[in-house]
Amino acid sequence: MDLKQAAKDTAKVLTSYLTFQAVKTVLSQLKETNPAQAYWLNTFSTKEALQDGETYLTALMAEKPDLAMRIMTVRQHIAEEICEFLPEMVIANLQQANMEHRRQHLERLTQLGDADHLDQSETLSTLEVSQESASDGERSLE
Amino acid sequence: MDLKQAAKDTAKVLTSYLTFQAVKTVLSQLKETNPAQAYWLNTFSTKEALQDGETYLTALMAEKPDLAMRIMTVRQHIAEEICEFLPEMVIANLQQANMEHRRQHLERLTQLGDADHLDQSETLSTLEVSQESASDGERSLE
Repeated sequence: MDLKQAAKDTAKVLTSYLTFQAVKTVLSQLKETNPAQAYWLNTFSTKEALQDGETYLTALMAEKPDLAMRIMTVRQHIAEEICEFLPEMVIANLQQANMEHRRQHLERLTQLGDADHLDQSETLSTLEVSQESASDGERSLE
Repeated sequence: MDLKQAAKDTAKVLTSYLTFQAVKTVLSQLKETNPAQAYWLNTFSTKEALQDGETYLTALMAEKPDLAMRIMTVRQHIAEEICEFLPEMVIANLQQANMEHRRQHLERLTQLGDADHLDQSETLSTLEVSQESASDGERSLE
């Protein structure tokens, strides 16, 4: 597993996503202060692929440099405010989501057991197998 | 600007992206150890929207719980390894990209100036205007 490449790719995706967040923020500001420009930016942002933040900004810079500058400033601001909290949030999210998936799986296994009128011991052994395969997954990483 | 909501949304996007990275990793491991299962997972992952990591995992859990468990373990591992580096990487990425966009813009302005045979002073005042609009953007955030 190439963790360095994974980190680079993830940072790139995050950069693009923050650009999208900045566009959303500037759009909602403009809707109050300059509806005509908000309409223009909205049309431009739908048309241009917001998938790649840098390509989007290069295109916007050619059309309306002031808006591009503003979006760049806003995305930097958002990044500085939220980035420090992300690692903790993401790891907590993952732990909770993983636990929830495992819980649902075990619940389904025991319900299947009830439905098929398996006795308790059979249901339990199914649970043990599924726990073993979970720890297999962990081992395969080492 | 709702920074708390922005942080939550960003963490969710990041969680989904890490799931995608984990699927990629497990796929490349399976290609070496179990090509038939790699083929199956590849087909499944193309068909199912990998856009939402949790929906994908719920669907996979119903079909092949062992693979779902493995992907969950791998995504947690990737997150724990790379998350701490992300804030620094993202902020550095943004600073560099923003500087590059500004540089290109100034370069284009001065080239335009040359092409239109403007004299030096006019070109310089255009530059000043563009710097002012950049600091306008900063002020609008406060």
